[in-house]
Amino acid sequence: MNAEIIAVGSELLLGQIANTNAQFISARLAESGINVYYHNVVGDNEERLLQTISTAEKRSDLIIITGGLGPTKDDLTKETAARHLSCSLSYDMESLKAIEQYFLQTGTEMTENNKKQALVLEDSTVFFNFHGMAPGMLKSAEGTTYLLLPSPPREMKPMLVNQVLPYINDQKTENNSIHSRVMRFFGIGEADLESRIEDILSEQTNPTIAPLAEDGEVTLRITAGSSDLKEAESLVNHMVTVIEDRVGQYCYGYDQNNLLQKISLLLEQKGLSIASAESLTGGLFSSEIASIPGASHYLSGGITVYSNKAKQAVLGVPEDLLEQYGAFSCECAESMAQQVRIKFDSHIGISFTGVAGPGDYNGIPEGTVWIGVSVKEGIVSSFKVTLKGDRNFKRIRAVKHGMYALIQLIEKNAGPLVKQDS
Amino acid sequence: MNAEIIAVGSELLLGQIANTNAQFISARLAESGINVYYHNVVGDNEERLLQTISTAEKRSDLIIITGGLGPTKDDLTKETAARHLSCSLSYDMESLKAIEQYFLQTGTEMTENNKKQALVLEDSTVFFNFHGMAPGMLKSAEGTTYLLLPSPPREMKPMLVNQVLPYINDQKTENNSIHSRVMRFFGIGEADLESRIEDILSEQTNPTIAPLAEDGEVTLRITAGSSDLKEAESLVNHMVTVIEDRVGQYCYGYDQNNLLQKISLLLEQKGLSIASAESLTGGLFSSEIASIPGASHYLSGGITVYSNKAKQAVLGVPEDLLEQYGAFSCECAESMAQQVRIKFDSHIGISFTGVAGPGDYNGIPEGTVWIGVSVKEGIVSSFKVTLKGDRNFKRIRAVKHGMYALIQLIEKNAGPLVKQDS
Repeated sequence: MNAEIIAVGSELLLGQIANTNAQFISARLAESGINVYYHNVVGDNEERLLQTISTAEKRSDLIIITGGLGPTKDDLTKETAARHLSCSLSYDMESLKAIEQYFLQTGTEMTENNKKQALVLEDSTVFFNFHGMAPGMLKSAEGTTYLLLPSPPREMKPMLVNQVLPYINDQKTENNSIHSRVMRFFGIGEADLESRIEDILSEQTNPTIAPLAEDGEVTLRITAGSSDLKEAESLVNHMVTVIEDRVGQYCYGYDQNNLLQKISLLLEQKGLSIASAESLTGGLFSSEIASIPGASHYLSGGITVYSNKAKQAVLGVPEDLLEQYGAFSCECAESMAQQVRIKFDSHIGISFTGVAGPGDYNGIPEGTVWIGVSVKEGIVSSFKVTLKGDRNFKRIRAVKHGMYALIQLIEKNAGPLVKQDS
Repeated sequence: MNAEIIAVGSELLLGQIANTNAQFISARLAESGINVYYHNVVGDNEERLLQTISTAEKRSDLIIITGGLGPTKDDLTKETAARHLSCSLSYDMESLKAIEQYFLQTGTEMTENNKKQALVLEDSTVFFNFHGMAPGMLKSAEGTTYLLLPSPPREMKPMLVNQVLPYINDQKTENNSIHSRVMRFFGIGEADLESRIEDILSEQTNPTIAPLAEDGEVTLRITAGSSDLKEAESLVNHMVTVIEDRVGQYCYGYDQNNLLQKISLLLEQKGLSIASAESLTGGLFSSEIASIPGASHYLSGGITVYSNKAKQAVLGVPEDLLEQYGAFSCECAESMAQQVRIKFDSHIGISFTGVAGPGDYNGIPEGTVWIGVSVKEGIVSSFKVTLKGDRNFKRIRAVKHGMYALIQLIEKNAGPLVKQDS
């Protein structure tokens, strides 16, 4: 089954938002073994949308259209799809009732245009919208399946995952199983990684190997297809072992477990608590950790100290240390990590200090970052990394280096990172 | 001039990344008065890319292709464009020299595939890549202009802004001026906003008015075209005044100045320093503020306190207050804001506490958030908001409510937010 995605909305063509819906839908379809060969974006324009649907119909079995289901005048998707399919629109009574109820409950007047959201394609399968007003719908005609989804991600994502995909998977008659694994690397560049497995990459057929570099991490997605799922899994697992033999020392995790997921899981499993002292990163480390549900089990907290004054007064870094070595030093990073661990009475303290830029600072090049780690047994350590890219890329990379160091520390319970308290 | 964007990369079709390049390019082109009518994404597949370029050629004057310029085997964009244009590829010597130099300097061996990055379309205008290896290029043929750009955003963005757009603007012969302004709203829903200006929206021709809702903010983009730039500006300004008359009380800013930019600017201009005490948001507020260059002028720092123990021990919230009212209360929010302001000796303290979810906590519904603000004159205040959406959406919304409250506080120097110290 070959799919393509059409996103409708002038806001996408004006660059006001990115098409993250296409990303989410593609990832879910890939997991279900459905190939996506094209993404398209068109504006709120009936003729151009009609033309795009016609082109898609000639090359794809499943056409997913997001957006344009709302109440306003420029929402034209259902009308255009009906025109393409030569069918009519009718009210979905369950959706209409829910819309009317919403306005009753909130005590606001229901404007007439809101009713339009309950219109659906004649004879389509309707997906009730549990997080908004406009329902989704699926209709097959002449060998092509059309799926219309609302564009707000909060509405589209649960509808796709909980309602649409189970429905589509029930309908599938093919016996084609796909299995896929993602290997995650840190500390090695994409070109370097690829050149080390060049022979494997050039011979790939089944499984296929797709490299991707993003924000300083590199991933390899290994995908195999077979009529038997067990066979597909075995093909993937064998390839993972072959690649691990070559570059396993840089592979820190698999599948959805990126650096953040992995360190969160490790802290939870080992019953370790952590506190952060952040200068350069400004709270990004603790905020990232806090973004995972259940973070309160291991995140004690953190202190963001942006000035030397605050490093002394709030964090308790000794004045003479700051005078002798400055805030951009191993000594300061180690003191920050130790102080924050003690203040929060946590197992681990981590710190980030350095020059985010733009511009160098007192002769220290932009992008120089010191990361300190302190653990309860009185061991403290630090390391320096030099990062490139814009201000926020450097902040993100710094946080990732910190997470990677913590993973190594916890998994190996030692490693080059940890030295005696200085 | 009508443009369309083709992004090449199987990672996009697999949903591993979002097509943020198309967003960035579209926004910059819109500013330059170039209409973008289509986005396309195709995989690393020569036939499908060729077909997509052929379709684009029939409907667009400018075709921008991102990606597929790299060193690996699946990078096929230049080869495919050359095939479409029936032209050859040759080495750009400046790029080739820079690539060779890079490997010399870093002391790593240059693999043969890296040389491929210096190949460019015959007779094209070459844009040197100051942040990577593969150059960009522009070539016109039979009334269509082809622009090839590298896909890493760190390379593409500065190349587009600093090299390509100045070049294109120099070439433009049309006398068509476009002026555009964005009005930014908070505290009003999209449907509510639209219904209040429905008559204006339905009559729009020039200027056009494009509404957009994102992360709890709503924007209206007002765009006018004219042969005279002054005339276009005047059309836009008049419409802004008309809309302000209706819904001006919800409009907090214009153009690039979103809530974060606006509060940062205000703090800088007024010489005010700020510190944050964050429970629910886990450092997201301070991290957001720190993401703006120059944040050290006004961000004193912040304390993330995830447990009651830390709220007492690190932040100094009184134990009896926590016992009497609990961590999820106005009293706790106000104490947190006051304590952090005092600790950092800053002009303003802001705090966030509440239930991020998933799930309710001790009968307090998920999404209930208390925000406290304390200012140097001893005035402290707080308010409660109830937020919907997933964990991170709630955290982001909470931070935005805090920023909006601070903007009101600073701009009005009073307002309903501020009451006497309790």
